[in-house]
Amino acid sequence: MSISAETFFLDSHAQGTLQSQIQQMIAQGILSGRFARGEKLPSSRKLAQHLGVSRITVTLAYTELVASDYLSARGRSGYYVSDTAPEPPATPPQVPKSDAVDWSRAIGQRFTGGVTPDRPRDWSRYRYAFIYGQTDPALFDHANWRLCALKALGQKDFTALTTDYYDQDDPKLIEFILRHTLPRRGITARPDQVLLTLGAQNALWLAAQVLLTQRRIAAVESPCYPALRDILTQSRCHMAPVDVDAHGLPPDRIPQADVIFTTPSHQCPTATTMPLDRRHALLDRARELDALIVEDDYEFEMSFLSPPSPALKSLDGDGRVIYVGSFSKSLFPGLRLGYLVGSESFIREARALRASVLRHPPGHIQRTAAYFLSLGHYDALIRKMGRVLADRRRVMESAIREHGLDIAGSGAFGGSSFWMRAPDGVDTRALTTRLMDQSVLIEAGQHFFPIANPPTNFYRLAYSSIPVERIPEGIARIARAIADIQTNPPPSS
Amino acid sequence: MSISAETFFLDSHAQGTLQSQIQQMIAQGILSGRFARGEKLPSSRKLAQHLGVSRITVTLAYTELVASDYLSARGRSGYYVSDTAPEPPATPPQVPKSDAVDWSRAIGQRFTGGVTPDRPRDWSRYRYAFIYGQTDPALFDHANWRLCALKALGQKDFTALTTDYYDQDDPKLIEFILRHTLPRRGITARPDQVLLTLGAQNALWLAAQVLLTQRRIAAVESPCYPALRDILTQSRCHMAPVDVDAHGLPPDRIPQADVIFTTPSHQCPTATTMPLDRRHALLDRARELDALIVEDDYEFEMSFLSPPSPALKSLDGDGRVIYVGSFSKSLFPGLRLGYLVGSESFIREARALRASVLRHPPGHIQRTAAYFLSLGHYDALIRKMGRVLADRRRVMESAIREHGLDIAGSGAFGGSSFWMRAPDGVDTRALTTRLMDQSVLIEAGQHFFPIANPPTNFYRLAYSSIPVERIPEGIARIARAIADIQTNPPPSS
Repeated sequence: MSISAETFFLDSHAQGTLQSQIQQMIAQGILSGRFARGEKLPSSRKLAQHLGVSRITVTLAYTELVASDYLSARGRSGYYVSDTAPEPPATPPQVPKSDAVDWSRAIGQRFTGGVTPDRPRDWSRYRYAFIYGQTDPALFDHANWRLCALKALGQKDFTALTTDYYDQDDPKLIEFILRHTLPRRGITARPDQVLLTLGAQNALWLAAQVLLTQRRIAAVESPCYPALRDILTQSRCHMAPVDVDAHGLPPDRIPQADVIFTTPSHQCPTATTMPLDRRHALLDRARELDALIVEDDYEFEMSFLSPPSPALKSLDGDGRVIYVGSFSKSLFPGLRLGYLVGSESFIREARALRASVLRHPPGHIQRTAAYFLSLGHYDALIRKMGRVLADRRRVMESAIREHGLDIAGSGAFGGSSFWMRAPDGVDTRALTTRLMDQSVLIEAGQHFFPIANPPTNFYRLAYSSIPVERIPEGIARIARAIADIQTNPPPSS
Repeated sequence: MSISAETFFLDSHAQGTLQSQIQQMIAQGILSGRFARGEKLPSSRKLAQHLGVSRITVTLAYTELVASDYLSARGRSGYYVSDTAPEPPATPPQVPKSDAVDWSRAIGQRFTGGVTPDRPRDWSRYRYAFIYGQTDPALFDHANWRLCALKALGQKDFTALTTDYYDQDDPKLIEFILRHTLPRRGITARPDQVLLTLGAQNALWLAAQVLLTQRRIAAVESPCYPALRDILTQSRCHMAPVDVDAHGLPPDRIPQADVIFTTPSHQCPTATTMPLDRRHALLDRARELDALIVEDDYEFEMSFLSPPSPALKSLDGDGRVIYVGSFSKSLFPGLRLGYLVGSESFIREARALRASVLRHPPGHIQRTAAYFLSLGHYDALIRKMGRVLADRRRVMESAIREHGLDIAGSGAFGGSSFWMRAPDGVDTRALTTRLMDQSVLIEAGQHFFPIANPPTNFYRLAYSSIPVERIPEGIARIARAIADIQTNPPPSS
C-alpha cells in the first residue's frame, strides 16, 4: 500500500525548518507504527505540492531519511519505508503524551463497572464449550443467508439498502413479523405497535428508558439476565428482586412495582417455563398493581419438545404487556436484530428515543432478514436446530444423570441450557477457572443474582454450540472437577 | 404461502365449543388481514394434533367456514382461504380493543416532540431535490460494495459475521481507521482511543450521555444540527447557544461551559470553515474554561476544492477534543457506521454505554466497510464524488449568481450545500411548501436555531443528490417562488 500525501500536515506553530518538520513527521509515522516497512512514500512532487513547499525541501528530507535508514530509494520508482527501518515499540508511546484533562471530573456519568461478564472471545478453541448464546457454525444455513444478503444488495433493493429511514423500519420485515412471527406466539399487532431494535438487548434498554425514572420501581426476577440488571442500574430506578421458583416468577410475591421484567418462556437463567395458569395470575397481579410487564421472549423459537405456550402478550387484554423478541438466538448474535411489541403510545416514545440514539438498524441487515424469513429459510433452520438441540439435550440429560450432577432447572418445551447446582461449598467461579485448563467452558452463576451475597454454587450449561459427541466427555470432566474441588478446595476460600 | 398450525392457540378461559373457537380463530385471522386469500390452511390432522383436539372437530370447523365462504376446499389438496373471503376492513380493528393502561402516567420519560424534522421519504420523486445527506445512487460504487459484502459473507469471515463481539469492534476496520482515515485528518490514535458507533448520530449521543448531566452546560453553535439539539434536550443539560459568524464558532463568545459542540470543517448548517488560527484560539479558550470539545467532522471527505485543514483533534495536546467521524456522508446514510476518537478514559465509558444500549454495530457491516476501505474503493469513490460535486457546485454558484439569490455561507474546501438567505419577510417554511408543488425540495432553516424566535428567512440548498443538468432550472424555480411570495404572501403571515 502507498502512503497518501494527505496524511501530512505542516504545523504553522511548530519549531524548526520545513525540512526537519517533514523528516520528523515521517520518522514519527514509522516509529508509531502508522507507516509499515515496504510502504511507498508519496512522490516528492506530490508531497511538495500538498504541503505548499518546494520540491527540493522534500527531496532533501527523503535523502536524510535514507541516510538514517528510515527510507530506501528504489531508483525511479521512488522512496519506500526501509525494510530495516526502526520497529515501532511494542507499547506505542502515549498519544497525546500528557492528557491535561482530569477525567475523573470530566466524565459526567459512568457506565463501566457493570455485572455483565466478559466471556472468553476465543470460546470456539475450547473443546467442551458449554457456552450460551453463541452461534454453532455447523448449524447455521450460511449458504441461504448469503443468497438473501446478495438479493438485498441487488440494484432493485438499493434504495432500501442506502436510504436514511430516520425513524422508520423496513416494511417488508415488519410485515413478516406481523403476519408470521407474532401469530405463532398468539400475538396480533398493527405496524405502529412494533419497533425493530438492535437485538433484544437494545429492546430492553429502550423499554427501561421510556418506562423508568429514579422514582419508579422495577420488579426483576432473581436470578436474572445480568445485562438487564446493568440496564436497570444505569436507569437509576429502584430494583425489587423477586426469587423465582420451579415455575418462574411467582405473582403473589411481586411487591408494589411500576414495571415487572419477566422471562416466562424460559426463565433466564434457570430455564424453567411458566405454566399457563401462572401467566394468567401474573396478568391479574399486574392489573392489581397497575404495573406494566416487559416480557422477554428471547428463546421461544427453541421449542423442540412441544409447542410453546402462548406468550403473556397474547393473553393481555389490557395492553399492559410489552413484548421483546429477538432473531439473535436463532440466527446469530452478531446480526443484532430484535423487536418490541406494545401499545402505540409506548412504541411512539421508544421510536423517538431510538431515532435519537441511533436512528434505525442498518437497512441492509433488515432487508436480508426479511428475505431469509419470507423465503422460508428461517423456518427450515429452526426445525433443523430443533432436531439437533433435542438430540444434544437428550445426551446431556443422560450424561448428567450418569455422573450424578444436579439439574436445578430446565425448559418444558426446549431451550438451549440447563441451570445446574453444584454441592454446597463449591464456588463455581473457582470451578470455571479449573475447567478452562481442561478445555471445558461453563458459566458460573453468581452474576445472575441481583442481590447481595448471591449463592456461589450455581452454574449454567448450554448445549447450543457443543457437538453432541463431545458432550459425554465434557460432562465427565465437570463431574471430576467438582469432586476434585471438594477434596482439594482452592487456598483462598 | 401456507399458514402454520403453530399460529393457532386454544384459550382455556374462552367461552363456547372447541369447534366454534377454531372457526372464530380462522375467521378473525382473515378479517384482521393476517390470513390472505389463497393461503393454505394446515391439514385437519396437523391442526388437531397441535391443538390436542379430535380431527373431526377441526374438519367440522373447516366445513362450516367453507359454507360461510371464508374457506374453499380444493379436493385432496386441502383447505384454502377463499378467493371471495371477506376482505379485512381498511382500518383494522383496535387490538387490544380497550387499552386499560393510562399511558400518560405509565410513560416515565418522553422522547417525542424533538425538533429534528421529518423529511419527505419520497424525495427521489422530486425532480429538483436539493436535499441534504442522502445518497446519489448514480455516484455510489454499488458493484464494489456488493463484492466486498460478498467477501465479508464468505466462509472465512463467518466468525466475524456471526460472533457476538460484546463490547469489541472489528479489528480490521479499527486498523484501517487508525492507519489511513485518521492520519488524513492529522490524528494519531491507539485502538483503545477509538470506538465504532451506529453513525455520527450515535457517536454524538454517546458523547452527550457520558459527558453531560443536569448540572452541566453544553455550548452549542447557533444555528446547529437539529438532532444534536434533541440529544442535548434529552440529556437535560443546560444549553448555551453561541451565534456563529463567517468563520464558524467565535471562541471569545463562548461562555462558561463544560462541553463545547462544534463543526469546524463545515459548520452545520452554514457550511463555513473555521480558519486554522481560530482553531488554535478555540483550543486555548477550551483550556481556559477547562471545557471539553466535541468536534463533529461529519463532512471532511467532501473536500474537493483544496485539502481540508487539519482537524481540531490533531492540534489537541491536552486530550480535550473528542472527535466524531462518519462514513455515512461518503458511503450512504443507511449504512449507519461512524466512530469516536478520544482519550481512553472517555472511550472506556462510551464503550460500556454502547454495550448496554446495543452491544456493537452488526459484524457484517463492519467487515464489509473494512474491505471496501482497505481495497481502495473508498478512496476512488471519494475522488469521483469530489469531481462530480465540484462540477455541481460550480453550476450552483453560477445559477445562484444569475438569479440574484443570496449565499449566506459555503465551505472553503468543498462540502455539499449552501446556506442561503431569502429576503427579509420571506418565511422559508411557506416557500418550501410552495416549491414542493413545483417538484423542488429545499430545506427551511428555522429548525437549525437552538433559540426562541429564530430568523425565518434562511434555507439550505444541498447538491449531493441533484444531477448537474437540473440545477439551473431548479434554482430558477426557487428564484421565481421567492419573487412570487414577496408579491403574494401567504394569507396567515
